[in-house]
Amino acid sequence: MAMVSPCMIRTIGFDADDTLWHTETLYTGAQVRFKRLLLQYHSPEWIEERLYQTEIGNLQCFGYGIKAFALNMIETAIALTEGRIAGREIQSVIDLAKEMLATDVQLLEHAVETVAQLATEYDLMLITKGDLYEQESKVARSGLARHFRHVEVVADKTRDRYQALLARHQIEPAQFLMVGNSLRSDVLPVLALGGCAVYIPYQLTWAHEVADPPPAGHPGYYQLEHLGLLPGLLRKTNP
Amino acid sequence: MAMVSPCMIRTIGFDADDTLWHTETLYTGAQVRFKRLLLQYHSPEWIEERLYQTEIGNLQCFGYGIKAFALNMIETAIALTEGRIAGREIQSVIDLAKEMLATDVQLLEHAVETVAQLATEYDLMLITKGDLYEQESKVARSGLARHFRHVEVVADKTRDRYQALLARHQIEPAQFLMVGNSLRSDVLPVLALGGCAVYIPYQLTWAHEVADPPPAGHPGYYQLEHLGLLPGLLRKTNP
Repeated sequence: MAMVSPCMIRTIGFDADDTLWHTETLYTGAQVRFKRLLLQYHSPEWIEERLYQTEIGNLQCFGYGIKAFALNMIETAIALTEGRIAGREIQSVIDLAKEMLATDVQLLEHAVETVAQLATEYDLMLITKGDLYEQESKVARSGLARHFRHVEVVADKTRDRYQALLARHQIEPAQFLMVGNSLRSDVLPVLALGGCAVYIPYQLTWAHEVADPPPAGHPGYYQLEHLGLLPGLLRKTNP
Repeated sequence: MAMVSPCMIRTIGFDADDTLWHTETLYTGAQVRFKRLLLQYHSPEWIEERLYQTEIGNLQCFGYGIKAFALNMIETAIALTEGRIAGREIQSVIDLAKEMLATDVQLLEHAVETVAQLATEYDLMLITKGDLYEQESKVARSGLARHFRHVEVVADKTRDRYQALLARHQIEPAQFLMVGNSLRSDVLPVLALGGCAVYIPYQLTWAHEVADPPPAGHPGYYQLEHLGLLPGLLRKTNP
């Protein structure tokens, strides 16, 4: 962990999916059931590979979220069965998506106390990518909403997007720290702006979010094992 | 038209779908093709009725937008054919959704000059309901983005949502005018807050958005035939 602290943090941005609550496990669980549905046609590896190809191919038009995932599963199922998949099997994919949408929000360990504690000292901002409707519903159900001064659901997490967001809230990049599980979406664009970032890897990463970490000792970059270590890091680097 | 003007307008909020650009025609066009697909099974009226029931039943979990509409069409097709619909026909529904998502933004008559003119005198805000990804893409492609000080994509348009939005941007309701084609979403909640609202009916209204107009002469409520009349109304009521 670099001990250089170029930032005087006032605002902390939190990613939500797989940073505050479990999401990827929900998708992989759904994939297991999807692969079972198509097992008579193809091997699980091939189904997974083709689903991923469909997701990447449709990312530009469908974006992120469970509805996009459902349409991608349906399209993959039709392609992999050359159209032989039955209507009721496609309905079971739609039902799977509805179940995913209705699943209780499962907070990560340490999320509640870390967010509650940091909210007394910093302005907190939730910055999450994905489907507006889904994310707002999860924020509401998470019980964490009252700790966040702002909740921002964005269509992507590029450097430009962070820049616009910080400008809009009149936050200096050097006073901003972003916390998340994606190097590509939560860490690299914020470091590029001159902000700080804490990378907390999740047990699973969607292939599309994989990226190389910044070089060791990069100023303002930290990696932690879990959220519960964040207040301690801030006490050390931002006293 | 009521000539009472309780507001001194500084900020004008514009709805987008069917206020600045055509949307409902896109959905009704897609429905025509969807009904054609199922014509061997049912009458067009019954297909339309069942699709609407599916949409209302799934509104809580899927929300608004083209991806939700695609899932609703697929679910309706499976139900109406008792699962006999073929895989390639379901793929044609997905392709229909992709076509809708890629369709050029078609601005309503008078939209460009009205927005450009009012932007020189008022703060303009785009307030649109629906899928974040879709709406941001449409705003970008509309060519109107630069005239709007803020663009807000919201999950719903309730009185509470408007109240939070105005508070966040430090706008007094009495200095806010909302313009839109939905009495339910653009007019009634804003009048309830003490703001002004201009109702500009579109040629088509989705059944779910239908509501009774405010009583005649309600202060701050106006109805116009088209967007091009808005600057004139403002000159008269907000000199």
